[in-house]
Amino acid sequence: MTGTSGAPNCKVALIGFGTVGSSVAKILCERTNTHLRLTHVFNRNVVRKKVDWLPPSVQWTENIEDVLSSDADIVVEVIGGLQPTEDWIRRALSSGKSVVTANKQLIARCGPELIQLAREMKQQIYYGASVAGGVPVISGLHEGLAGDELFKIQGILNGTCNYILSQIEANGIPFATALREAQKLGFAEADPTEDLDGLDARAKLAILARVGLHCDLRPESILARSISPIDAVDFEYASQLGCTIRQISMAELTKDKLLAAVQPALVNLSSPLARVEGPRNLVVATGTYGGETVFGGHGAGGHPTAVAIVSDILAIARSKHGGMNDAGKPAQKTPAVSPHFATKHYLRFMVKDRPGIIATLATILSACGINIDSVLQKPECQKSQLPFLITLEECDAALVEMAIEQMNDLDFMVQPCLHMPIL
Amino acid sequence: MTGTSGAPNCKVALIGFGTVGSSVAKILCERTNTHLRLTHVFNRNVVRKKVDWLPPSVQWTENIEDVLSSDADIVVEVIGGLQPTEDWIRRALSSGKSVVTANKQLIARCGPELIQLAREMKQQIYYGASVAGGVPVISGLHEGLAGDELFKIQGILNGTCNYILSQIEANGIPFATALREAQKLGFAEADPTEDLDGLDARAKLAILARVGLHCDLRPESILARSISPIDAVDFEYASQLGCTIRQISMAELTKDKLLAAVQPALVNLSSPLARVEGPRNLVVATGTYGGETVFGGHGAGGHPTAVAIVSDILAIARSKHGGMNDAGKPAQKTPAVSPHFATKHYLRFMVKDRPGIIATLATILSACGINIDSVLQKPECQKSQLPFLITLEECDAALVEMAIEQMNDLDFMVQPCLHMPIL
Repeated sequence: MTGTSGAPNCKVALIGFGTVGSSVAKILCERTNTHLRLTHVFNRNVVRKKVDWLPPSVQWTENIEDVLSSDADIVVEVIGGLQPTEDWIRRALSSGKSVVTANKQLIARCGPELIQLAREMKQQIYYGASVAGGVPVISGLHEGLAGDELFKIQGILNGTCNYILSQIEANGIPFATALREAQKLGFAEADPTEDLDGLDARAKLAILARVGLHCDLRPESILARSISPIDAVDFEYASQLGCTIRQISMAELTKDKLLAAVQPALVNLSSPLARVEGPRNLVVATGTYGGETVFGGHGAGGHPTAVAIVSDILAIARSKHGGMNDAGKPAQKTPAVSPHFATKHYLRFMVKDRPGIIATLATILSACGINIDSVLQKPECQKSQLPFLITLEECDAALVEMAIEQMNDLDFMVQPCLHMPIL
Repeated sequence: MTGTSGAPNCKVALIGFGTVGSSVAKILCERTNTHLRLTHVFNRNVVRKKVDWLPPSVQWTENIEDVLSSDADIVVEVIGGLQPTEDWIRRALSSGKSVVTANKQLIARCGPELIQLAREMKQQIYYGASVAGGVPVISGLHEGLAGDELFKIQGILNGTCNYILSQIEANGIPFATALREAQKLGFAEADPTEDLDGLDARAKLAILARVGLHCDLRPESILARSISPIDAVDFEYASQLGCTIRQISMAELTKDKLLAAVQPALVNLSSPLARVEGPRNLVVATGTYGGETVFGGHGAGGHPTAVAIVSDILAIARSKHGGMNDAGKPAQKTPAVSPHFATKHYLRFMVKDRPGIIATLATILSACGINIDSVLQKPECQKSQLPFLITLEECDAALVEMAIEQMNDLDFMVQPCLHMPIL
């Protein structure tokens, strides 16, 4: 890791140039201030994969030996599958490279052995992208909540199931229809078994239980039940019970055992789990000291998953030369600060009623170039202290403040206008 | 940092033994596998503070020199205020100690200078507890989302305001009443100005903008507007607009400036910000690549804040001897794995209707020691394929599976019983 400028470069080789791999390459190219340098891209049939937006210094190869024998500091594996991927990762670690992987099945199956090998080689293996895509839940459990003693993890870890269940709920359609539509839109694979039957989610749950609950367990030891028997009628019943239905992955450490399952479950509408829509992911971690902590966001997709991978690369680059305040730290900006967001606006007035009030206010707003969206007035109010509401179309808050200054001087105003943005 | 066992001890001195400080001490004592050792507790009138649950090796002192001249590796500052706290932190760093602090006003005002001093001394200063208590948002932005380019941060950062607004919303009470009740319950201070007027939240927003948006700004440059003009009528109007009202801290990086403000705002009921109840905190970070990521949890209180502090201590201990897989890593457990959570249960049947079905099912459930909670049946369904629902009181899923096995053999069952836990 040597570079020409103050901070040394960190050389990154990429195994796999599919959706996630090309997103990783894009971020590495577009972000110029990270001291990360992409040196190799490995893929089968690499000629068909080549793009023109990577610097010519990047070596494209379909020979894995080019990567494993290179001087790359970090190897990023986004090719998936168990073999030959496991061998390649072992060889990368053994040759003194750190590894970043998004491979949930591999990490669920042999994460501890790979971590042990990395430790022996004084290298790192990071796998933040293996669970919940762009949601930083692995680092959150491992570092952000390291001070707590977590005993329960509940999550929505499979975007395909969540999308299908959300669609049945929203449109009252049968399961089969929802699945077909998800497949058409690319939210479900042609063979959706891994997702629907919970095998994808239980690999992720095994990883979370290891990182958050410090329990070593095989994914096969976790019960996984399919969402395929769920139909529209179940959402009707669920709604009568104040609930909705989601595929929930849950693990809870008791005195003598680890409760763990991936299954469709009824969740109360007031739970954050109930409000996860479409392909999003959410994890709720519960600790002895800190109570419930929630992590949510995009659980899949090239860009969000690539964010998790690049975050891991940066973490390794930082740890490689010690201290969190060095490598990969973007320069601080010192821009002008302004409170003038452009939003819709809420103006609540309290007035002594008389004819012509709205006309007067509307004239001021119009003179400031502001459009009224709606006027609302509650019935049965006293004339001497009458609240009413004007909402404004999207405009700069500075304009609104100008208008309010004029309005507050008007003699019918009982108190100053209350102004809030509508987000 | 030397210890008797394999992993070296890391000596921790505590400045301040109030609610947060004593929670930090409690976690350090109760968690025995972290290689952290509490060596000093500083407080004014220390005799009145002494507790009997700390080991006798801990030195209690009201002389700050005892801490600053000690051989502690990490000094934890939870005494608050700007002075003499800033001097003490500078002296701790200058004498080769790392620092963990929960002091938002201090970090908002002179964080960059303190980080610079730490870097010069090859030490660390961590401040994860300064924003959103136990919610690991600082580490989430700094590490978990380091791979993204964030451009917007929105958050509910002040639990007092959120509690008061939630109460006005829920009970339709005037602002003054809600404030009085919050004060009675300890959710608001005798002088609540810092909270209500947004001064507390804007210090936190300045820190988040620095960490997440890489913008260096003074808290004073952020507009802060009070929630005190909000009244029950505003929640009625908001509700007509499909919204609720929250104190929102928001910062957004545009081409030429940073938009930033702390103010009451209308938020759409579908937004995660709308669903933050009581004293909880939530941060939504939006990035170019990863979209929206949400962090939520307990924003205040001794234990959650102490979790953030101990997590920071562990992060420093790890970085002090390199690599994330060493110091402070709890031993892995390998417990038995079971899917048998104790929950309420949802059993959905599809039957060919005839008299006596419910009696038959109820007999089986009763023989398994399971209590029925409710029976629900949709009207207007065909008799040959009739869906209906039985919910069960809380019991072990293993019992339910036993009962279902017997039920599925019954001749009136058109398809196997669908069983889901109710969470």
